[in-house]
Amino acid sequence: MDPYFIPFLNAEVLEDRYRELSKFLHKTPILTSSSINSECGASLFFKCENFQKSGAFKMRGVSNAIYELLKFNNKPKGLIAHSSGNHGQALAWAAKKHDIQCVVVMPRNASNFKKKAVFAAGAKIIECDSNISSRISTVKKICKTSGFIEIHPSNQPSVILGQGSAAWELMTECYRNNIKLSHIGVPIGGGGLAAGTGFAVSIWNKLHSTSIKVFAGEPIGADDAYRSFNSGKIEHNKNPKTVADGLRTELGNINFPIIQKTLDAIYLVSDTEILEGQLKLAERLKLIIESNCSPPFSVVCKERQIFNNKSVGIILSGGNIDLRNSAWGS
Amino acid sequence: MDPYFIPFLNAEVLEDRYRELSKFLHKTPILTSSSINSECGASLFFKCENFQKSGAFKMRGVSNAIYELLKFNNKPKGLIAHSSGNHGQALAWAAKKHDIQCVVVMPRNASNFKKKAVFAAGAKIIECDSNISSRISTVKKICKTSGFIEIHPSNQPSVILGQGSAAWELMTECYRNNIKLSHIGVPIGGGGLAAGTGFAVSIWNKLHSTSIKVFAGEPIGADDAYRSFNSGKIEHNKNPKTVADGLRTELGNINFPIIQKTLDAIYLVSDTEILEGQLKLAERLKLIIESNCSPPFSVVCKERQIFNNKSVGIILSGGNIDLRNSAWGS
Repeated sequence: MDPYFIPFLNAEVLEDRYRELSKFLHKTPILTSSSINSECGASLFFKCENFQKSGAFKMRGVSNAIYELLKFNNKPKGLIAHSSGNHGQALAWAAKKHDIQCVVVMPRNASNFKKKAVFAAGAKIIECDSNISSRISTVKKICKTSGFIEIHPSNQPSVILGQGSAAWELMTECYRNNIKLSHIGVPIGGGGLAAGTGFAVSIWNKLHSTSIKVFAGEPIGADDAYRSFNSGKIEHNKNPKTVADGLRTELGNINFPIIQKTLDAIYLVSDTEILEGQLKLAERLKLIIESNCSPPFSVVCKERQIFNNKSVGIILSGGNIDLRNSAWGS
Repeated sequence: MDPYFIPFLNAEVLEDRYRELSKFLHKTPILTSSSINSECGASLFFKCENFQKSGAFKMRGVSNAIYELLKFNNKPKGLIAHSSGNHGQALAWAAKKHDIQCVVVMPRNASNFKKKAVFAAGAKIIECDSNISSRISTVKKICKTSGFIEIHPSNQPSVILGQGSAAWELMTECYRNNIKLSHIGVPIGGGGLAAGTGFAVSIWNKLHSTSIKVFAGEPIGADDAYRSFNSGKIEHNKNPKTVADGLRTELGNINFPIIQKTLDAIYLVSDTEILEGQLKLAERLKLIIESNCSPPFSVVCKERQIFNNKSVGIILSGGNIDLRNSAWGS
C-alpha cells in the first residue's frame, strides 16, 4: 500500500474526505432491473456513473486531485493532462468550476466529437502525435514552460482515492437498504477505478466486518491487467485491440500494488460479450453507456456459478458516446 | 371534475393511495443537467419514467387500476386492453405480478419488437386489423366471451389517477430539497398522463398553497388536444403524422374535462424539434427515451420567455425503443 493511503486506513478520515468531495459531484442513482436479475440469476445494483458530471466517474478522481491541491498547496497556475477521452473532459469541467486554466493534450487523430467535448468544457487543446511518448513529452514540455500541474488519469494517489468514492456511495446506499453485497465489479483499463474501488472496499470491510469482494472485467484484446495480476509484475499490451477504447491503457506503478492487494479477481470478456452487454444494459436499463462500461456486467452474465443468487454492485463507468455517428446493435 | 375524483380532493386520501401504489412501482430518479440548464435559461428537473417498471409511466395507471379491482371487487378472471405499445406491455407485466391472465389486442402490423415485448411480459396477443374500430370490437368480443375486464390506456378514472403519481413524487422530492417548481410539463396523446398530472398538481397546490402550473407539449402533426383545449370540445385527428407514435391518439370524455380544468396551456412542437430534443436528452442526460418524451422539453427550449429563470419539472414518459433498428440523429 502506498504510504499516501495510510491516513485513510481510518474509515472516518476516508468518509470525511468523501463527504467533502460529494459537494462537487452528483450523487448518482443506483438502478436495478428485475428482468436482468432473473436472466443472470443474481441481484445486480448498477451505480450509474454515466450520470456523473462530465458523463463519467473520472470527475471523482479529478475533483479529489483539485481538492487536495487547493487545500494543501497554493492555487495552481493551471492544470494539464494528456487524454483522448473522459479524463480530459472531466479535468476541463472541474478546472473551469474552480476558475483554473486547463490544457488537454490530445492526439492529432482524436475524434472531433471528443475534441469538441473537451473544448466545450472550457479547456485549451494542444495536439500531439498519436503515440504515448509524444503525449508524455508534450505534457512535460508545457509543464516546464507554463508551471501547470499535471493530473494523471489513473496513476496518481489523489485521483485513485477519488475514484473510490463511487463504490463508497454504492455500499452506503445498499447498507441503508439492508442489501448485503457480495461483490462489486468494475472495468479495468489504466487501473485508477479498480485501485480506488479496491481500496475503498477494503476499508469498508474492516469498518462493517463485511467481506465484499472486488473484481474487474477486462477485454481479451487488452488483457495486460489480467496478466499483470497473475504474474505479479506490470505486463504490457503490444497491440491492444478492443471496441472498449478506454480500456486499452495499462496499469501504473502506484495503482498496481493496490490492485494486487485489494482485488479478488480479474476476468476476461470478448468484444462480442462486451457489445451484447452494452446493448442489454441500454435496452433494459434505458441507459446510454460506453462499451467501456460493460465488462463487469458481461462477467456476471458469463460466470453464473460464481455470482449465483448473490447481490452484486456494478459500477457503470461512463456514457460519453458519439450518438450522431452511432448505430446500436451493429 | 368526474365524481370519481371527488374523494381524492382530500390530499391525505390521495397521498395514502400513492403510498399504497408505490409498493408496486419503482421510485424513479430525478435527473438534472447544468449544461441543459444554461442552454435553456431555466432549471429543469427530469422525472425519469423511462426507468419505471416496463419502461414507461403506463405502469402507474395500470397498477392503480389493478389495485382498485383487487381492493373493491373480486379478483378478475383476466385483464384485456388494446394497445400497440407501452400500455399493453405495462398491463402484461402488472397482471403477471398479480397472477392474473392478460390479453393484449394488437394490430396485425404492429412491429415485432412491440409484440415480442408484450409476449415476454407474459400476455397472450390477439391480432386485429390496424384501425381503431377493429381494436375496439375485438376487445368487446373477447370481454363478452371470456369475462375479462378491460383496462383503458387513458380514459379510465383509476388509470388517470395512477398516472398522477409521477408528478406527486416529483413535487414531493423537490419540496424536500427546497426547490420551488413553477411548472410541470408532460407530453399529451390520449390524455391520461396530462389529466392525472393536472389533477395531482391541483391537489398539491391546495395543500401547500403553491401555484405550480401544468403544461403539455404536443406534436404539430397530431394537434387534436391543442385544438380541443382551445375550442372547448373534443377535436379529432384526421390523419395524424408525427414521429412521436404514442401521441397520435385522441382525448377521451373522462380525461378531457380534467385537462380543461387543470392544465395551464398546451404548446405545439414540430417533429424536428422533437427529434432534436430527444437527441439532446440522450447526449446530455445519457438516457434512452422515446421521441414521445421530448415535447415538453422542446417546449421549454422554445418558449424561453415563459420559462426564463424558472424551476420546471419534466416528466420523461418512457424509454421503449427498438435499439437494434435505431440510428441516432438520423
